[in-house]
Amino acid sequence: MEGSDSGIYGNHPYAPRDLKLPGFVPGFLSQSTILGVYGVSSLLVVSLTWLFSGRSPRKSKLDRWLMCWWAFTGLTHLILEGYFAFSPEFYKNKTACYLAEVWKEYSKGDSRYAARDAGVVSVEGLTAVIEGPASLLAVYAISKGKPYSYILQFAISLGQLYGTAVYFITAYLEGDKFATNSFYYYAYYIAANASWVVIPTLISIRCWKKISAAVQVQAQGQDQKKNKTR
Amino acid sequence: MEGSDSGIYGNHPYAPRDLKLPGFVPGFLSQSTILGVYGVSSLLVVSLTWLFSGRSPRKSKLDRWLMCWWAFTGLTHLILEGYFAFSPEFYKNKTACYLAEVWKEYSKGDSRYAARDAGVVSVEGLTAVIEGPASLLAVYAISKGKPYSYILQFAISLGQLYGTAVYFITAYLEGDKFATNSFYYYAYYIAANASWVVIPTLISIRCWKKISAAVQVQAQGQDQKKNKTR
Repeated sequence: MEGSDSGIYGNHPYAPRDLKLPGFVPGFLSQSTILGVYGVSSLLVVSLTWLFSGRSPRKSKLDRWLMCWWAFTGLTHLILEGYFAFSPEFYKNKTACYLAEVWKEYSKGDSRYAARDAGVVSVEGLTAVIEGPASLLAVYAISKGKPYSYILQFAISLGQLYGTAVYFITAYLEGDKFATNSFYYYAYYIAANASWVVIPTLISIRCWKKISAAVQVQAQGQDQKKNKTR
Repeated sequence: MEGSDSGIYGNHPYAPRDLKLPGFVPGFLSQSTILGVYGVSSLLVVSLTWLFSGRSPRKSKLDRWLMCWWAFTGLTHLILEGYFAFSPEFYKNKTACYLAEVWKEYSKGDSRYAARDAGVVSVEGLTAVIEGPASLLAVYAISKGKPYSYILQFAISLGQLYGTAVYFITAYLEGDKFATNSFYYYAYYIAANASWVVIPTLISIRCWKKISAAVQVQAQGQDQKKNKTR
């Protein structure tokens, strides 16, 4: 609705073409620079977490991979999505600020980011403010073997799944017409989000099983105690 | 966007006044009838669940109350919200169908229901399709003392909280202008949704504690076993 009376549109690379983005400033960085910086930073975070997690002697490889995932996803939520959630005018940015460039680029896969769609902003806001810090807490919880480690990982994963579901369903209901072309549709909208469907699903299933098993063992333990009082 | 070129609007009791709802048919049932039927049906469901749950001798009162909550919320999700999610034209209904009447009435507190807002439809769809059946499974899980009982209740409660958060945040971002007047704003939009903030929060906290305790007991048990092999 914003700027709907400005009459200035079509000055951007996004779909649908009648989307109005008065004051839009095209991106300065190339796609390879934007993806490269994200890729290298992520690799750095994962490598450091892997090395750091190796110092705890009793950590399984799976736990160490999970710590890497939570560090990577937590920083993505906090920094990238946190910037988006609180920067309604990123598309007007003239300074080649990396974070604004990321979202100018990603909007080619989903223009609702530039258009400030309320559903997208809600989901990204919750992800940044709640799931970001919670993911970093999960790194700590796994490293220290905290008893809330599984339920925390389960909670964040469900939040990610719910957010992704709302994200895709709202786009579908609104006509699935927000990608510049099918390259961006599949590369950004589908592929870039796929990790946040597959990995949280796997983690949720694992935590569900671990927690159910622990509850069952505890219940059996209580029964045994009662029987042993002979 | 739908019907934006029809020019027919203002024929409905909803806000904002420029909302276009071509083909809108006013409600037939009075507010007291609509609320009365929901109240009496809910009371019936809760009473029957309470009686039924009393047949399991080892159920605590809290577990029995939780079974009542899950039966009530599950049927609300499945029937009321399920009808809404899959009835895009309920506001045109001419038959005094109770479920259509509920949403014609509720739309006075939040016209996004009649306007078919994508965020609202996504949240209601997920609630009806996933949380509805899952809530009824929770009644069964508590009644049978299943080991997945806590994690299931936790998962549904988080889903309810996430959905309610998206519901309120999207309205706020879009200007919080969807109630006919402040009576409907506070009675329907705020008060009617408050239970789905307070109760899932309490249940989540309880399940978090129960699960963390069970995981801790299991970890201690494993340590003790190792030490006992003396």
